Amino acid sequence: MAATPYQQLEEEFRRLHAFRGALAVLRWDAAVMMPRGSAEVRGEQLAALETECHALLTSPKVSRLIERAHANAQGLEDWQLANLREMRRERDHAIATPNALVSRLAKATARAEMHWLEARRTGHFADYAPHLAEVVALIRDRAALLGQHLSLAPYDALVDEFSPGVRTADIDTLFKAVGRRLPNLIREAVALQTEKPALPISGKFPAAKQRALALEVLKAIGFPFERGRLDESEHPFTEGIPGDIRVTTRFAPGDAFQGLLGALHEAGHAMYDLGLPQAWRDQPVGRNRGMALEESQSLIIEMLLGRSRPFLAYLKPLLEKHLGVSGPEWEAENLYRHLTRVHRGLIRAEADELTYPAHILLRYELEKELLAGELKVADLPAAWNDRAAARLGMKPASDSEGCLQDIHWAVGQFGYFPAYALGALIAMQLWEALRSERDSLDQEIAAGDFSGLFGWLRERVHASGARMTVQDLVKEASGRPLSAAPALRYLEAKYLEPR
Amino acid sequence: MAATPYQQLEEEFRRLHAFRGALAVLRWDAAVMMPRGSAEVRGEQLAALETECHALLTSPKVSRLIERAHANAQGLEDWQLANLREMRRERDHAIATPNALVSRLAKATARAEMHWLEARRTGHFADYAPHLAEVVALIRDRAALLGQHLSLAPYDALVDEFSPGVRTADIDTLFKAVGRRLPNLIREAVALQTEKPALPISGKFPAAKQRALALEVLKAIGFPFERGRLDESEHPFTEGIPGDIRVTTRFAPGDAFQGLLGALHEAGHAMYDLGLPQAWRDQPVGRNRGMALEESQSLIIEMLLGRSRPFLAYLKPLLEKHLGVSGPEWEAENLYRHLTRVHRGLIRAEADELTYPAHILLRYELEKELLAGELKVADLPAAWNDRAAARLGMKPASDSEGCLQDIHWAVGQFGYFPAYALGALIAMQLWEALRSERDSLDQEIAAGDFSGLFGWLRERVHASGARMTVQDLVKEASGRPLSAAPALRYLEAKYLEPR
Repeated sequence: MAATPYQQLEEEFRRLHAFRGALAVLRWDAAVMMPRGSAEVRGEQLAALETECHALLTSPKVSRLIERAHANAQGLEDWQLANLREMRRERDHAIATPNALVSRLAKATARAEMHWLEARRTGHFADYAPHLAEVVALIRDRAALLGQHLSLAPYDALVDEFSPGVRTADIDTLFKAVGRRLPNLIREAVALQTEKPALPISGKFPAAKQRALALEVLKAIGFPFERGRLDESEHPFTEGIPGDIRVTTRFAPGDAFQGLLGALHEAGHAMYDLGLPQAWRDQPVGRNRGMALEESQSLIIEMLLGRSRPFLAYLKPLLEKHLGVSGPEWEAENLYRHLTRVHRGLIRAEADELTYPAHILLRYELEKELLAGELKVADLPAAWNDRAAARLGMKPASDSEGCLQDIHWAVGQFGYFPAYALGALIAMQLWEALRSERDSLDQEIAAGDFSGLFGWLRERVHASGARMTVQDLVKEASGRPLSAAPALRYLEAKYLEPR
Repeated sequence: MAATPYQQLEEEFRRLHAFRGALAVLRWDAAVMMPRGSAEVRGEQLAALETECHALLTSPKVSRLIERAHANAQGLEDWQLANLREMRRERDHAIATPNALVSRLAKATARAEMHWLEARRTGHFADYAPHLAEVVALIRDRAALLGQHLSLAPYDALVDEFSPGVRTADIDTLFKAVGRRLPNLIREAVALQTEKPALPISGKFPAAKQRALALEVLKAIGFPFERGRLDESEHPFTEGIPGDIRVTTRFAPGDAFQGLLGALHEAGHAMYDLGLPQAWRDQPVGRNRGMALEESQSLIIEMLLGRSRPFLAYLKPLLEKHLGVSGPEWEAENLYRHLTRVHRGLIRAEADELTYPAHILLRYELEKELLAGELKVADLPAAWNDRAAARLGMKPASDSEGCLQDIHWAVGQFGYFPAYALGALIAMQLWEALRSERDSLDQEIAAGDFSGLFGWLRERVHASGARMTVQDLVKEASGRPLSAAPALRYLEAKYLEPR
C-alpha cells in the first residue's frame, strides 16, 4: 500500500529530526571539544546542515503534502492531528521569511554582534547603535511577514516562536500583576534579610571535587548517564536529543554552588527533553513546547527544588562528603539563607529568583517600543536607565551594565525575553499544584528521592510534548489557567517568611 | 554572470564536503565521547547524512552538470580538469550500485558481521559461512556493475575504490617480487636476531604520563593542536577534515611504545590530510589519494621514522623525562632492537614491518579466488590454513586466528587488503628517495627537527591531493615507477644488517 501524505510527511520530518540531532552534536562539540582553530570549518558544516533543514521545511513537496494531509485529515488520530498542526507551524515559521531577508538578517546580526561585543567592552553605545538599528528594521520586516503568514500581530508572531500560543495580551496581564507587587516585595524581602543575614560562606573547592558532587546529585535526580553526559564549558547549556542529551556547567573554585546549580538548571532542561513522548520522539509533536516551558523546567530544578530547605537537607552531607566542609555556616538553614539571598543588581544574568522578573519586564516594554517605532534606537540608553531606576531601584553607571549587557537584540532575538519570566511564572504555578497534590514531597526530597517530583512533571508536562499551546498545557497540568497569582503566593511565602 | 556548469559543480561538492565533515565529527564523537546508550540515535543521524551524500552524488542534476562541464572543458585549467575527473569518479562509484543492491548489501553485511563476531569468539566457521557466502555473492554483483561502469575488470573496480588507478596486473607484479624474497628474508632476519636479542623492557607506565610523552612528540612533528586533538579510544583512528583533524590511540600501561606508535601512525594520516592542497580543500581533487597512499603516510611515520635509530636517539631523553626510565635496556640501540624485532605470528594486526606483507599476500590471493568463484566459501578455512603454512610458516590452531581474524570480508570490504601492502611498498620507495635527496635527514631527526621530513612529504606527496593516479603520484614524488625493489632494499638493509 502506498504511503499516505501524512505518512510521507512523518518520513520527511524523521529526516529533519536526524539532521537536527547531528546539528546538536556539532554545536556541543564546538563548545566543549573542538580546537579553537576549527571554528571556520565547523561554521561551514553547521551552515550546510541548517540550509538543508530550511530547504526541507520550505520545499514544495512538504507544503504539498501538508495540504493533502489536511484534506484527508478525517482518518487521523488526535496525536497525528497535533503532529500535522506542528508540522504546519514549523513550515509556516520557516517559509514566512524570504531567503533574501534571511540572508540580510544573517549578515546584519553578524555585524551587530561584533559591534555589540566591542561596545559592551568600551561602554560606547553610539558606535553600535546604527548596527542595532539595522537589525531592528529587518526584524520589523520579518515580524510583519511572519504575522501576515500566521494571522498574528507582528510582535505576537515573534513571541509565538518561543512561547507557542502566548500573545501580547496574555503577557501584559501577567506582567502587570507581577509588576504591581514586585517593587514592594523586593523592598520588604531585602529589609527582612538585612535583619537576619546568613553566615558568610567561603573556601576553595577544586573543580574535580565539585564535579564529583554534581555527578552524584545528577545521578540521584535520575539523569541517565548511559544516554547523556555532564561536561564543562564557558557558559552552561543543554544540547542534544532525548537519546543523547548533554549538559554542561562551569565550576568556579571560589563558589561551591554556582557549578552545581548550573548543572541542576541544565539537568532540568534535560529531564524535560527525556520525558517527551517516546513514540513521537522524531516528530514535531514530540518536541518540547518552546522556550517558556523549557525555562519553567530548568527553574523548577535550579530554583524551586535546588534552593529549598528539603533539598539543602539532602545536600548537606554530600557537601561534607565531596568538599570536606562542615561548621555552622554549612548547616542546611544557613545554606538556605545563603541561596535565597535577595540582591538588587543591574545585571540580569546574575539576578536572583525574586528580582529576575523586573529585569524581564523592562526589556519586554523596551523591545515592543523599539519594534513599534515608538522608541528610537538612539534613545534606548536613556529609556533603559529611566526604566531601570523605576523597576530595579538603581541606575547603570555605564551602558555596559545597562542596555548593552545582553546579546539577544544584537543577534535579532526579539520576542525571546518574555519567555524567561513566563517560564518562572509557569514553574511556580506547577510547583504549587505539585505540592498541593503530593503531601510527602518534602520528606521525599530530603531523603534524596526525586522520583515523585519527576514522575509528576513527566506525566503532567513532559509527556504532552508539543500537543497543546503553552496555556493549555499549563492549565491541564496545574488545573488552573496560567496566572501570576501562584508565583506571587510562592514568592511572598518564601521571601517574606518570618525567620 | 551566471555560474558555469563547472562552477555549479564546485558548489554542489562544497556542500558534500560539509556533510562529510559533519559525518566525521559524528563518527569521532561516537567512538570517543558518546554515551553507549546513544548508539541507535547516532545510527539514524549517520544514515540520514550518508543518504544525503549519496543522493547528492547520484542526483540527475550533478550528472547533467558533469556532462555539460565536460562538453565545455576547454576553458578549464589543469587542477579544474583533475577536479572534474574526480567528481566523475566519485559519481561513477556512487551511481554504479543500484539502491536495491546497496540496501541488500547493508542488510547482508550487518547479518554477516554479527555472525562473524560470534564465529570468531567460538571458532565455528560453519555458522558464519552462509552469511559470508551471501556477502560474496552480492559483492560479485557489485563488482560486475562497477566494472561495467568504469570499464574495468570486476576485481579491479573494487581495488580502484581504495587505490585509484592500481590494477590487478600491477599488484601481481609487485606482490610476486615481494613474495619471492620474503620467506627467506624473514628466516634470515629471525636467525640473526636470535643470535643477538634485545634486553627485555618492562615496567608500568601510567596512561597520563604516556599521554604527556605522546603530546610532546606530536607537537615536535608539527601536529597542529590548535586545529586537532589527540584522544583515546579502543582502536586508534584518524577522523576529520584538514581544518579539524582528530587522532586517537590507546595507552597500554604495560607497554611504553604501543600508545606512542599508535599515535604516530595516526599522526602520519593526519599530517597527510593537513598537507592536502588548501585551495582545493572542499573539492574532490583536494582529497587524499585513497587508502594505499594514506597507509604509506602513516607507515612512514610509525615504521620508517618511528623505528629508526635517529628517532630513538631523539626519543630516549623524552622517555626518561616523561616515564622516568633509564638503564641499559633504555639506551637507543636496545630500543631499536626491541622495536625492530621480527616475530612470526598468525595475526595480521599484530604483525611487524617485515612479516606484514605475507599476511596481505595470502588474503589477496584468497579474496580474488572467492570472487572469481574458484574458491568456495566452505573451503576457505582449509585454503587459508594451507596458504598460512606456506606464507607465514605456521598453521592456525583455530579459524579464530585464521580466516576469522579480520572483519573486512564480513562487512564487504573486498579489494581493500592490497592497499595495506601497497602502502608499505610506497612508504619504502618514498623513504628511499627522500633519504637520497636529503643527506642531513638523520641528524635532523636525532635533533628533533622534523621539518625537512614533512616539508618533503608535503611538497612531493600531500600537495598533489587527488590530482594523479597512485602510480603517477609515486613516480612524480620518487622519480621512479612504483616497484618492489626499494622495499626489498630497505628491508634487507634494516633486517639483515650485521649487528
